[in-house]
Amino acid sequence: PHSKLPDVGTSIFTIMSGLANEHKAINLSQGFPDFNCPEPLINLVTQYMHEGFNQYAPMPGVLKLREKISVKTEKMYGYLPDPETEITVTAGATEALNAAITAVVKPGDEVIVLEPCYDSYAPVIRLCGGLPVYVPLMLPDFSVDWDRVKRSITSRTRLIIINTPHNPTGAVMTQQDMNTLAKLIKDTDILIISDEVYEHMVFDENVHYSALQNAQLRERSFVISSFGKTYHTTGWKTGYAVAPARLTAELRKMHQFITFCAVTPLQLAIADFMDEESHYLELPYFYQAKRDFFIEQLKQTRFEVIPSSGTYFQLAKYSSISDEHDQDFAKRLTKETGVAAIPVSAFYHDKTDNKFLRFCFAKSEETLRKAGEKLAKL
Amino acid sequence: PHSKLPDVGTSIFTIMSGLANEHKAINLSQGFPDFNCPEPLINLVTQYMHEGFNQYAPMPGVLKLREKISVKTEKMYGYLPDPETEITVTAGATEALNAAITAVVKPGDEVIVLEPCYDSYAPVIRLCGGLPVYVPLMLPDFSVDWDRVKRSITSRTRLIIINTPHNPTGAVMTQQDMNTLAKLIKDTDILIISDEVYEHMVFDENVHYSALQNAQLRERSFVISSFGKTYHTTGWKTGYAVAPARLTAELRKMHQFITFCAVTPLQLAIADFMDEESHYLELPYFYQAKRDFFIEQLKQTRFEVIPSSGTYFQLAKYSSISDEHDQDFAKRLTKETGVAAIPVSAFYHDKTDNKFLRFCFAKSEETLRKAGEKLAKL
Ligand SMILES: CSCCC(=O)C(=O)O
Ligand SMILES: CSCCC(=O)C(=O)O
Repeated sequence: PHSKLPDVGTSIFTIMSGLANEHKAINLSQGFPDFNCPEPLINLVTQYMHEGFNQYAPMPGVLKLREKISVKTEKMYGYLPDPETEITVTAGATEALNAAITAVVKPGDEVIVLEPCYDSYAPVIRLCGGLPVYVPLMLPDFSVDWDRVKRSITSRTRLIIINTPHNPTGAVMTQQDMNTLAKLIKDTDILIISDEVYEHMVFDENVHYSALQNAQLRERSFVISSFGKTYHTTGWKTGYAVAPARLTAELRKMHQFITFCAVTPLQLAIADFMDEESHYLELPYFYQAKRDFFIEQLKQTRFEVIPSSGTYFQLAKYSSISDEHDQDFAKRLTKETGVAAIPVSAFYHDKTDNKFLRFCFAKSEETLRKAGEKLAKL
Repeated sequence: PHSKLPDVGTSIFTIMSGLANEHKAINLSQGFPDFNCPEPLINLVTQYMHEGFNQYAPMPGVLKLREKISVKTEKMYGYLPDPETEITVTAGATEALNAAITAVVKPGDEVIVLEPCYDSYAPVIRLCGGLPVYVPLMLPDFSVDWDRVKRSITSRTRLIIINTPHNPTGAVMTQQDMNTLAKLIKDTDILIISDEVYEHMVFDENVHYSALQNAQLRERSFVISSFGKTYHTTGWKTGYAVAPARLTAELRKMHQFITFCAVTPLQLAIADFMDEESHYLELPYFYQAKRDFFIEQLKQTRFEVIPSSGTYFQLAKYSSISDEHDQDFAKRLTKETGVAAIPVSAFYHDKTDNKFLRFCFAKSEETLRKAGEKLAKL
């Protein structure tokens, strides 16, 4: 058959994790922790399974979980979304992104996407017949070029996708950024997807500012988060979307026919475990310590870094080591040096190469130390 | 925003399960067991979670699970699909259906759908810009009107979706049906989705004949199954699709951007538990006993039944009780009689009402007996 996505190949995450396994390299490529999730969370899942909670969840998610999300959202961002009409639990943030994009993008619609960006945005837009309009983030700090965003808006612009804290760069948007965005879309009916899956990982003086904190944006936004990131359970595929009732209604129509619901015992367990607020309140410090430790290791190497402001990723510039294209360099690094990382060009539609690799530091100190030793040999 | 699916409301499963809970009715509507999955399966999930298998699975599924699926497929249907290129694990059969339809349907394509049918087919087709072409199954036994299918084929027909054993009617296709279908599409490039999620639930002299058993169909088919149905774990959202390599490649492009992967510890546990072949080999007898027990209960009532040939559903005609539309009758039955069932008109795009309710008999004898007592009062 003729492919609907002829130019989509194996994703960079699959390629690099595969290569890492093949060469027994330390895998700092695909974003996931190499430590386990909290034991009490596992025990809750076990308990719910034994109690028989193994059948379909309600389509929008287990109510108890939506209520906990609502309360947490108010604590963090001062806005209490209605669990009945404004919160939907999904099979991971990836499904939430798919559902939100599919809910609103029609053939011919334009969607503004800030590059570099997560690899699912553009293909889903194109599958809906939409046109991704790419706006590059500005070096050296990957801040948003709002003037260029403004110039990219046309009468066909349906949606703008933002992501903060930002994968792969670690950049964090400010309140000022959000205000600017709100102003830009004021007299339009442009909608927003705000991908905030790393909301609990911000460092130093940075704070995560959610689209939910801006009343104008909130009225137009799908705000997406991920329990996989927060609870060290990327393989549990449980995420959610917060959106005003009229947008949630449309998102749920998609969700109903994409997966119908997320996994029941996991939803119940997460709902209970959310009472342990210290888990997510301490997460920024937990990951900041890892970032600092990793940067310490990189000091022995020729990689250049600006400390990441958020996420569990650290970019590192390798231009003083090699002038290869980052995809070639990343592959060679995996094979010859034994450390796998993601070439940042994979996050640009045209494979723009700024000589950055993205390292995931959601790893034990042992893993990060060993990686540092290997990288120091370059 | 203007809805992309303006006519999609709350699904009949959500409505009826909600109404059942509200009125404390016995819920024989939405299809799920009221007994638990096997204890050893739960213990395997627990074990894998404690061992730290809580991060992303490979995008196409855990290899061990794909290998077990392959071996089982050969044992059941005499065809050994390649785990590397022909099997994809998904977040339930619903995701597999979404991915398969989305992978192949383009704007303007026609898709032949046999009615009554599962409620996700048509909306997903329409989201792709496709046109569902409905062909009703023939009363009284809901067999396929192949002449009418033939007459419905045009140069724009891209896909035919079949479902056997059939939800909601319990009808089972024969080898002859599959041969006829193969002949119909011989000189076209029409593809097939064969929804076989109830493959292990066939009764009496019926046998499940898979599209994989017909060499011509196999070359053109996405064959979809569901661990939720087979292992009494509808809330685990783990299913799979078997398709030739060139179709699997396209399906995986979608899957990658829909959920990326299914839940890791569940995949690993199911892979191990698949060694207990007796579980699925005994499933037809297990469910046939339930069907027989339920029909026995219905003998005290004024419902008329032709025994279901497969699935865990039994249709029952209520025309000697009431001439209400089935949606009204189903709601009244829930509220006044305390038994919830699905009105079969919900599976027709035009709400065709043949005075049938669908009862799910995946319930304990206790539940089925109590339901029978209530229904006898009508
Ligand atoms: C779904 S695999 C990708 C994981 C991830 O978010 C990343 O590495 O960027
Ligand atoms: C996903 S809820 C619907 C369950 C089901 O397959 C049915 O009841 O037909």
